[in-house]
Amino acid sequence: MAAAARLAARARPISSPNPGVGALLVRDEHMLARGWTQAGGRPHAEAALFNALEGSPRGATLYVTLEPCAHESRRGPACADVIADARPARVVIGQRDPDPRTSGKGIARLKRAGIETLLLDDPASAASLSGYLSIKTSGRPHVTLKLAMSLDGCIALADGTSQWITGDAARAHVHAQRARNDAILVGGATWRTDRPRLDVRLPGLEQRSPKRLLLTRGVAPEGVSIINRPGQIADLEGVQYLYTEGGAETAASFLREDLVDELHIYRAPILIGDGLRGLGGLDLGGLAETHGRWTLTERRQLGSDEFTAYLRTR
Amino acid sequence: MAAAARLAARARPISSPNPGVGALLVRDEHMLARGWTQAGGRPHAEAALFNALEGSPRGATLYVTLEPCAHESRRGPACADVIADARPARVVIGQRDPDPRTSGKGIARLKRAGIETLLLDDPASAASLSGYLSIKTSGRPHVTLKLAMSLDGCIALADGTSQWITGDAARAHVHAQRARNDAILVGGATWRTDRPRLDVRLPGLEQRSPKRLLLTRGVAPEGVSIINRPGQIADLEGVQYLYTEGGAETAASFLREDLVDELHIYRAPILIGDGLRGLGGLDLGGLAETHGRWTLTERRQLGSDEFTAYLRTR
Repeated sequence: MAAAARLAARARPISSPNPGVGALLVRDEHMLARGWTQAGGRPHAEAALFNALEGSPRGATLYVTLEPCAHESRRGPACADVIADARPARVVIGQRDPDPRTSGKGIARLKRAGIETLLLDDPASAASLSGYLSIKTSGRPHVTLKLAMSLDGCIALADGTSQWITGDAARAHVHAQRARNDAILVGGATWRTDRPRLDVRLPGLEQRSPKRLLLTRGVAPEGVSIINRPGQIADLEGVQYLYTEGGAETAASFLREDLVDELHIYRAPILIGDGLRGLGGLDLGGLAETHGRWTLTERRQLGSDEFTAYLRTR
Repeated sequence: MAAAARLAARARPISSPNPGVGALLVRDEHMLARGWTQAGGRPHAEAALFNALEGSPRGATLYVTLEPCAHESRRGPACADVIADARPARVVIGQRDPDPRTSGKGIARLKRAGIETLLLDDPASAASLSGYLSIKTSGRPHVTLKLAMSLDGCIALADGTSQWITGDAARAHVHAQRARNDAILVGGATWRTDRPRLDVRLPGLEQRSPKRLLLTRGVAPEGVSIINRPGQIADLEGVQYLYTEGGAETAASFLREDLVDELHIYRAPILIGDGLRGLGGLDLGGLAETHGRWTLTERRQLGSDEFTAYLRTR
């Protein structure tokens, strides 16, 4: 299942508006075929897998991160039907599909076809589907907040100088993260001050630059969309994954409304002292309420910088 | 040599005013005896080792973190003489003693006695002797600066509330660090605001509470010594290891004068936003000069908090 979830990562975010699903067909500890949702959402992971399969799936187990769809569309047959026709021995599903057109129906269809079907509540599958699940259950995209700071929590010198706090490896990692998101958002003040390009500058990924979005009460610059308040991310079309890069007030406004699902912190081994902060006020009632909100999910060294990721505990 | 350096840690800081040395006697991959500098500096590590040795050191190798002393004192014979009399086959030394009464003379004495003698420049030995070496080479104690912060670099809420940012495991680690230092220093403002006890509250280590020291232009409270400026740490008697716990201006004043050798950062997985900072202004000329100063030496998880230690790159 973990391997299927890793395959699903290849579909992020290009599967939009469909969920990015991963699928793996295994028999006697050998992988027979694999698939993931293709660009624009079709073929689905299961269809891609059976397209790639040479030979029969008889006796094999299909691992798929999301319940196979049960609704036909103009774009292709329902995956539950495709699987029922192919007849693997067993299907293991990472997460139930919250879409009412499929929820429970995909599983029922497989069982009716006499295929042993097992539904897990697999965390790796959930993580790989976080954008899709967020839209279906919270009505808004999955939001990642990025902060690049010194050891003492400064994002720039007092005069605003921020080039560079982190090193090449950390900045390349940020560009790779941008490519994993459908849209990237900064505040109006950051836009006016830094004029960030907000694109992906990695060889081969230039075409993966996300939509650009400003949080502002002002006018939209050319080629950039705007929202006036954080809650309007619920109205964005085709955005499962949103990446916000600050500044401090924008980050704080998302945190105050509890709209941040994931924190990405890049920390350089430097001290700045009286520089600029990464966050504005959070209107906390006390220290107790700050605890227990964030769970460390990843830590890695990027050159001399440390990257840590945290998920909002919900 | 690494094992001898770990033994030396047992002498920190109780060996003061003597260096905390570790010694290990090995033959055919078996440890025959070990020793470290005892409380108050006597017996020295080598004397403690030979006191503990049962049988003969013939054919064995003595590992010792610091060059054996060559000067007799009222408190005992020179270690170089003790070793020369005991006649192990070989002596491996981690660091040369910068004390002019011994430097090079301890090694010469061993070689004169026909003992194979090897002088390393071993980093683990140097680290275990950092307080002693700092006094001998820089004329001041080794200084550790502790910061306990949120992910975004705050040490308290805006109203000063700092109980608690870090958890039990981190606070116990801080108390263990206090016990590894001869003196502990805070600024006058922190003293007046927090009235910190600055003691060691760990079972069995209560007697290891360090001297208490204030950086202030005011009057010394009872039981507390004062210095008026960071440079006066050069005048402290019997202090090889100094632990500073802030506040922000005190920490910054030590950093501005480049008097911090080691950073200890405790980071809780919480966000505070507009709280108090851990550091005041550092008078930086630009971002470039902040880089390359700190090298990560340790990272460990303490409950939900992360501990990282950095050494000043010199």
